[in-house]
Amino acid sequence: MVKIAIMGHGVVGSGVAEVLCSHADNIAKRAKEEIEIKYILDLRDFPDSPLCDRFIKDFSIIEADPEVRIVVETMGGLHPAYDFVKRCLLAGKSVVTSNKELVAAKGAELLAIAQKKNLNFLFEASVGGGIPIIRPMSQCLAANDVIEIAGILNGTTNFILTKMIHDSMDFSDALALAQKLGYAERNPAADIEGQDACRKICILASLAYGRHVYPDQVHTEGITGVTLADVEYADAWGGVIKLIGRVKRAQQEKLSMIVCPMLLSRESQLANVDDVFNGIMVRGDSTGDVVFYGKGAGKLPTASAVVADVIDCVKHFRARKYLFWEEGKEGYVGNYLDDSTSMLIRLRAENAALAAENTEAIFEGAQRLYRKQAPKEELAYIVPEMPEREIRKKLERLEKLGISVPSAIRVANDL
Amino acid sequence: MVKIAIMGHGVVGSGVAEVLCSHADNIAKRAKEEIEIKYILDLRDFPDSPLCDRFIKDFSIIEADPEVRIVVETMGGLHPAYDFVKRCLLAGKSVVTSNKELVAAKGAELLAIAQKKNLNFLFEASVGGGIPIIRPMSQCLAANDVIEIAGILNGTTNFILTKMIHDSMDFSDALALAQKLGYAERNPAADIEGQDACRKICILASLAYGRHVYPDQVHTEGITGVTLADVEYADAWGGVIKLIGRVKRAQQEKLSMIVCPMLLSRESQLANVDDVFNGIMVRGDSTGDVVFYGKGAGKLPTASAVVADVIDCVKHFRARKYLFWEEGKEGYVGNYLDDSTSMLIRLRAENAALAAENTEAIFEGAQRLYRKQAPKEELAYIVPEMPEREIRKKLERLEKLGISVPSAIRVANDL
Repeated sequence: MVKIAIMGHGVVGSGVAEVLCSHADNIAKRAKEEIEIKYILDLRDFPDSPLCDRFIKDFSIIEADPEVRIVVETMGGLHPAYDFVKRCLLAGKSVVTSNKELVAAKGAELLAIAQKKNLNFLFEASVGGGIPIIRPMSQCLAANDVIEIAGILNGTTNFILTKMIHDSMDFSDALALAQKLGYAERNPAADIEGQDACRKICILASLAYGRHVYPDQVHTEGITGVTLADVEYADAWGGVIKLIGRVKRAQQEKLSMIVCPMLLSRESQLANVDDVFNGIMVRGDSTGDVVFYGKGAGKLPTASAVVADVIDCVKHFRARKYLFWEEGKEGYVGNYLDDSTSMLIRLRAENAALAAENTEAIFEGAQRLYRKQAPKEELAYIVPEMPEREIRKKLERLEKLGISVPSAIRVANDL
Repeated sequence: MVKIAIMGHGVVGSGVAEVLCSHADNIAKRAKEEIEIKYILDLRDFPDSPLCDRFIKDFSIIEADPEVRIVVETMGGLHPAYDFVKRCLLAGKSVVTSNKELVAAKGAELLAIAQKKNLNFLFEASVGGGIPIIRPMSQCLAANDVIEIAGILNGTTNFILTKMIHDSMDFSDALALAQKLGYAERNPAADIEGQDACRKICILASLAYGRHVYPDQVHTEGITGVTLADVEYADAWGGVIKLIGRVKRAQQEKLSMIVCPMLLSRESQLANVDDVFNGIMVRGDSTGDVVFYGKGAGKLPTASAVVADVIDCVKHFRARKYLFWEEGKEGYVGNYLDDSTSMLIRLRAENAALAAENTEAIFEGAQRLYRKQAPKEELAYIVPEMPEREIRKKLERLEKLGISVPSAIRVANDL
């Protein structure tokens, strides 16, 4: 019998309790031990819960109880989760978390403590919800150099973009629908501004390349600037716009990394990942492209990933799982302006014919795109691949000629 | 330093040696031990190999050498692989194999020996090549009841069907191309008759439901009967034909299981898995649908999965990994004729108008399909879902009326 505590009884935390109870036999068989929830930490009361006798409000009870060997953290947010998790590890308890903000901000530090204390700190549920990705990455891909990771990592924004693409809804209507359906929070900033996707690609990059990447090292753009006009030009080109987090190994021990809306060809393995689904592509030098696809969020998918980690902890009290990365360092992620890219640019100018002439002179080889019912002041192009810094300079030249640039969306040529 | 032996220096075996050498540093870091290839067993000579001093022809050298703690089996086929693997386990060595024929035929027995001797018997590479599937299934999905598994499990047949669908090649031309490109063997029977896919779904079913399923328990149809006419009717209906292996939990502790060409809607997560790629959908009660996608075969992808298992063995000399299923039993897989299905049927009759009248009377609610340049004797329908036994009886009635049934392809409504 292994006793555990769950910190936080929100969506994920209550799901963990539910899965542990509803699948108890199967879990005991796989873990070779029964797992009992001794405490549930939450400031709220849950008098109607079948586990109502386990609720506590004081964290130090968990910290001080040597019977508790595994602590599940599903509170979310950085504080007090960070403090509690650290204290649990220092008190000799393994920790399982679904908290991507915590792992992205403090992963290296917490993994180092876990290693020193010979404990496990596991976080399968922090990326991709119920999709197994951390474990396959760290184990199956051990025989690979990871060339690149690219993924649709946020279900809320993917739902919004899907509605824009397939139902021609505009951004604000699609966001309102996502909120109505419970896919987006009342304050949707972390999703639509890209921070959530950024945290997840940081975790994957840290794991794949062995050094912590902090979210503020990664240039991050959300989808608030994507319009139906962009979606229509993407379609005319033969593609779709998706919010992508990606990382590649660049030269000189640096990473090339970005989170932004990207134009994908319809043939891309990620182009058909729609609605609230996530899809993550891992490109290995031996395996080639492997794609993981499924629901990236939701109570039971995420809870089942947490429970799988709990089972793993039980099975690995002695043989600690290898999961580790070094502290981050300044300059580890290169400047995104140095990365080469092609772009879909949308322009506005009073004299469209003259603007076209100027644009085609400045961007040699640019491919003009058309959409139905475009305003006569509007132009759109796919500009050839070059360092982004050069594209930006050329766009400035356009602006000096009185051509405004309402949007510039990177093209993911190799996805 | 851990010493291993590799039995078989064919495509996969030589790939394993290559990956172990080319990624030695990374592998040692993850395994926390250096891994050295002490022997390579092969009847052929490889004088130009950089590892030429490791080659032996006598299995008993491996069996008798206590320094060899892990043996990789990449010989393929049942004999002598089965005998050698069993003797390795009995001699106290963990075994890693890519041999799906071996695991599908002898998995329960070999897992039982491994369990008794407290060793690992791992076979990630036996299904899906480089796609991680055995490990995520056995670990991440521990907190799920697996409702269903369905997959495109054979790259050769998927390549042939892709050529038929996208390039309107007929079956024999597509097969010849696959052979020319090295995707199909000179004797392609195991692929095109469905046995290879059958072995793989047997392994996944055994793992997911805890009891061995033997390939001869599963009704298996290959793709040799699929024609361009069927592909065109599938397209008219809005779908594609794919060779699918699937298993579901049926009533009374039985499984419902089949390997056959199936009609999938274009919206299906498996419909866009093209060329030599594999795609495997695992439907869990908590996670919902999770899809794994990648190259299902090939030297380096498969080798990298073998190497990941070797690393896992090194890390788990003491804490054996949980991977086990019971012996199979008669009657464990239900009769496929009792399963409900809808079907795409293609018919021929001298008097097509009369045949249509008869067919629509016998199959109430059948949906007629049309294709360009169909012979005037040809008809095609999607017939409503009912137990397959009833469909077969109705088709017999049609045949008695002089209507022949050149093809009947099951529809996968819920994929």
